[in-house]
Amino acid sequence: MNDAFDYARYDRIRPIRWTGDALELLDQRKLPFVVEYLTCATSDEVAAAIHALAVRGAPAIGISAAWGVVLAARVVEAADGAQAGIALEPALQRLNAARPTAVNLAWALARMRAALHGAGADWRAVLEREAQAIADEDLAANRHMGELGAALIASGSGVLTHCNTGSLATAGFGTALGVIRAGVAQGRIDRVFAGETRPWQQGARLTAWELQQDGIPATLIADSAASHLLKTGTVQWVVVGADRICANGDTANKIGTYQLAIAARHHGARFMVVAPSSTVDMATPDGDAIEIEERDPGELLGIGGVRTVAEGIAAWNPVFDVTPAELIDAIVTEKGVVERPTVAKMRAAFG
Amino acid sequence: MNDAFDYARYDRIRPIRWTGDALELLDQRKLPFVVEYLTCATSDEVAAAIHALAVRGAPAIGISAAWGVVLAARVVEAADGAQAGIALEPALQRLNAARPTAVNLAWALARMRAALHGAGADWRAVLEREAQAIADEDLAANRHMGELGAALIASGSGVLTHCNTGSLATAGFGTALGVIRAGVAQGRIDRVFAGETRPWQQGARLTAWELQQDGIPATLIADSAASHLLKTGTVQWVVVGADRICANGDTANKIGTYQLAIAARHHGARFMVVAPSSTVDMATPDGDAIEIEERDPGELLGIGGVRTVAEGIAAWNPVFDVTPAELIDAIVTEKGVVERPTVAKMRAAFG
Repeated sequence: MNDAFDYARYDRIRPIRWTGDALELLDQRKLPFVVEYLTCATSDEVAAAIHALAVRGAPAIGISAAWGVVLAARVVEAADGAQAGIALEPALQRLNAARPTAVNLAWALARMRAALHGAGADWRAVLEREAQAIADEDLAANRHMGELGAALIASGSGVLTHCNTGSLATAGFGTALGVIRAGVAQGRIDRVFAGETRPWQQGARLTAWELQQDGIPATLIADSAASHLLKTGTVQWVVVGADRICANGDTANKIGTYQLAIAARHHGARFMVVAPSSTVDMATPDGDAIEIEERDPGELLGIGGVRTVAEGIAAWNPVFDVTPAELIDAIVTEKGVVERPTVAKMRAAFG
Repeated sequence: MNDAFDYARYDRIRPIRWTGDALELLDQRKLPFVVEYLTCATSDEVAAAIHALAVRGAPAIGISAAWGVVLAARVVEAADGAQAGIALEPALQRLNAARPTAVNLAWALARMRAALHGAGADWRAVLEREAQAIADEDLAANRHMGELGAALIASGSGVLTHCNTGSLATAGFGTALGVIRAGVAQGRIDRVFAGETRPWQQGARLTAWELQQDGIPATLIADSAASHLLKTGTVQWVVVGADRICANGDTANKIGTYQLAIAARHHGARFMVVAPSSTVDMATPDGDAIEIEERDPGELLGIGGVRTVAEGIAAWNPVFDVTPAELIDAIVTEKGVVERPTVAKMRAAFG
């Protein structure tokens, strides 16, 4: 972390709080008008909160699931880690099923399982330390990624982001928004644009609010205005997060990301993916192998609880899409930057 | 018109009604839940309805403005057409200022002005006949364009459209939606997708409803899902309308159209613009010369009167964008089809 810049000034929100007895999640369905933490006292309450989008963002989902395992441990009897692993497995499965696309969820649960190996009678304490480590490492990784990504951005640049990849989506600081935070703090970024991100409006409801809280001026646009914006030359980088990065660099992220990558390439702007290395899934060869979550078409039939569409209209609501590696200029993780990703470069970076 | 197909079955909505004393406009701000005609008894009420989007769609705006001139004539004293032209000019200017981007508005007003040349004491009747002719010709042109455009579409195709270019946007039948109507009636089109079209949701509120009324199954998508949809190979043609077509074929249309054109080209799908020849503006050399209307940023900050974005957030709300001619495979007007438009082809077609 470069101490020359005052990053803390631009990073004040923490969406996940562990009280010692329960998990408190900043309920992102209620933002920006109600700032309210939802208390989860059981692992199934955590799974439900993940499924219902009270907590969202791939890293935040992983961290929440890890705390969910700690909560599951409260109601399980086991003499040691091995027994606990067997007893906890149904709860882990339910947590894992809460969202299918984000690999961080499965990754965090795998870390929790692995922590139990060789654990003795203190297996509950081991789990709690592991969950805290996952959260702490995420925050540190985000700060590091922020510096790595910002270093790619020339002074005087404009950036466009999508969805919410900020403090709200992570333990803090954010992934793509972390790069934007660092870029603003370093004086490299002059202009920040955020796409509203239909249907859940994460950009409009969350990113715009989060940046406002942290004093970073940003301008909201309709998702469909991105190409028109890029044509004006105001934006040099599109900076987004990821829910899963494949062995060849193909990246699954919020629906609309793929369209931005095509538009960026068309206009000569550059395209950066920022995510912790836990998002990299070397077992998935390419984007064709990713299951794309489709959610309730009803999400497209209104906004903010207001129905805007007539009864009986069909809708198709894929929540993610895949951006092929050839449209990506840089993948930034806490392990470093992979420029113009290929299978060979990804293997060298992530083994 | 090919009588072999039952087009009337797929075309039941009429948004503009002239009662002889007043203009009734199907209030598109209230659709799809309230079907209500707004009565305009003066030309300034028509101008206000155009500005407020009670009536929208370039051809419908032009027709409404023509009837607005007829209403203005009711309160003007003039012995003949020449005197009337001078007396009516302030009202025409106010109508013309209601929306800046759509060329049909200025075109319809120019036709009304021209109709006054040489008119005698019956100049009011001349204006009323001219307004009716503008409306009748629009409907006939749309049916003809429907056939011309549908002929380009191979059997078994899927299409994606944007905004609303249907009966609601015209005297009836529609432009791009007219091609889709004809293509469905002829059995060429199997699948219709409509982008929701933020921020006014014309696709979600109007196109989905209009197609439902006419028994054409359609599927709504988020604007940002278009590239993901195109990648699946489900869509062979993107079919859109236009607010202004330049001398080189560059086309201004609803924000998001440009992005669809880029995405269509990227995926090998084809891109069709459908508009009456009154939309062609040979006096505008190319898209750089088009004034792009920007509307109240507040339109992006909520929906249906419900705010979804925090107070104090900035937004940028361009309502149109320009699709360059090189991304357009066909421009369809009632005068014929211009494939892969160039300056020379446009000049040959539109003089």
